[in-house]
Amino acid sequence: MDFQSVFPVWTQLNTAQKNRILGSLITRTFRKGGLIHNGNMDCTGLLLVKSGQLRAYILSDEGREITLYRLFDMDMCLFSASCMIRSLQFEISIEAEKDTELWIIPSEIYKQLMDESAPVANYTNELMASRFSDVMWLMEQVMWKSLDKRLAAFLLEESAIEGSSELKTTHEIIANHLGSHREVITRMLRYFQNEGWVKLSRGTVILLDKDRLRSLADA
Amino acid sequence: MDFQSVFPVWTQLNTAQKNRILGSLITRTFRKGGLIHNGNMDCTGLLLVKSGQLRAYILSDEGREITLYRLFDMDMCLFSASCMIRSLQFEISIEAEKDTELWIIPSEIYKQLMDESAPVANYTNELMASRFSDVMWLMEQVMWKSLDKRLAAFLLEESAIEGSSELKTTHEIIANHLGSHREVITRMLRYFQNEGWVKLSRGTVILLDKDRLRSLADA
Repeated sequence: MDFQSVFPVWTQLNTAQKNRILGSLITRTFRKGGLIHNGNMDCTGLLLVKSGQLRAYILSDEGREITLYRLFDMDMCLFSASCMIRSLQFEISIEAEKDTELWIIPSEIYKQLMDESAPVANYTNELMASRFSDVMWLMEQVMWKSLDKRLAAFLLEESAIEGSSELKTTHEIIANHLGSHREVITRMLRYFQNEGWVKLSRGTVILLDKDRLRSLADA
Repeated sequence: MDFQSVFPVWTQLNTAQKNRILGSLITRTFRKGGLIHNGNMDCTGLLLVKSGQLRAYILSDEGREITLYRLFDMDMCLFSASCMIRSLQFEISIEAEKDTELWIIPSEIYKQLMDESAPVANYTNELMASRFSDVMWLMEQVMWKSLDKRLAAFLLEESAIEGSSELKTTHEIIANHLGSHREVITRMLRYFQNEGWVKLSRGTVILLDKDRLRSLADA
């Protein structure tokens, strides 16, 4: 798999532009848990996930977290190049949730392309619109859905991503995804266990009744 | 005041593009309370506020609301033309909070400009980034701030917008701005009144102690 075949507007670039990207392209590897981008502190560049999994989240002053969205193979990460867009006035952190290999287009190269190419600028627009849609979906969840429904939906989503009913995770990690507190998640998972929907053991949540979890999540 | 002097990338358009905009530009007036855009149902076009005030909000299935952001004189509204950007997959409603006069660039005209002009596409990018930043700010408020602090901040913001300490509003309207329930807002306003920070009467909230409200909002 090469960069040219996965970069969405490749065919709309001229030869000089293509060479500029290829001449500056960086490949980097992050271990699971590695911090790739930290608020507005850095402006690494535009990332393209070759393989692995990223998590974008925000942090409160007290260190609470909530997951905004995930990025998978072939996904692009715009916010690691947020310095390119003046009006992007917020801080997102991005970490590797699995061992991850990335292509990086340096910010100044990509910015130059955006400035001169309408297709690149419009592609960037679509990219931002996708993430904006993810965040709006989350906003609606947070505003109108109770935490038990969000927890059920999260467990099912994790199970789908991992392709397994047995999730290696902690109550702390789940709380950080959902913007909640560990104690609250523990209480809710115990309720799920009493209902026979999950089975809990140290560092593991096993989904026993996905249909019931689905009904709760969709309610 | 004419459109040319307030449209941000006007000088970067060529004559044909300028004529295309001027030839299709529509002026419309909405009365206070009028619905300008309703979810994904319509795709009116890009709006430029000549005078007045707009409110963008989302609605739950149960009819609850939360204000995402406001638009004032010279602000641009992108989401009334959301059909232009395929990846914008969410529904926003926009209403006139005051009598409002708008310029409208029809969606198909603006889309064509975006497709052919990098400056227009990048300007659209900045516009989306601004609204995205507004929504991220709100997300942080909703996630990490308690409702009493958000209520104090909202009263101060309203007072600043209206240039008055006497707000003509109802508990229902405030609840709809903050994504809360009327009963909850009423209870909290009564608490504020007992503390001597506000004075309540029918359809009015008078701010008596802005310093204390500010301390609460910033806490």
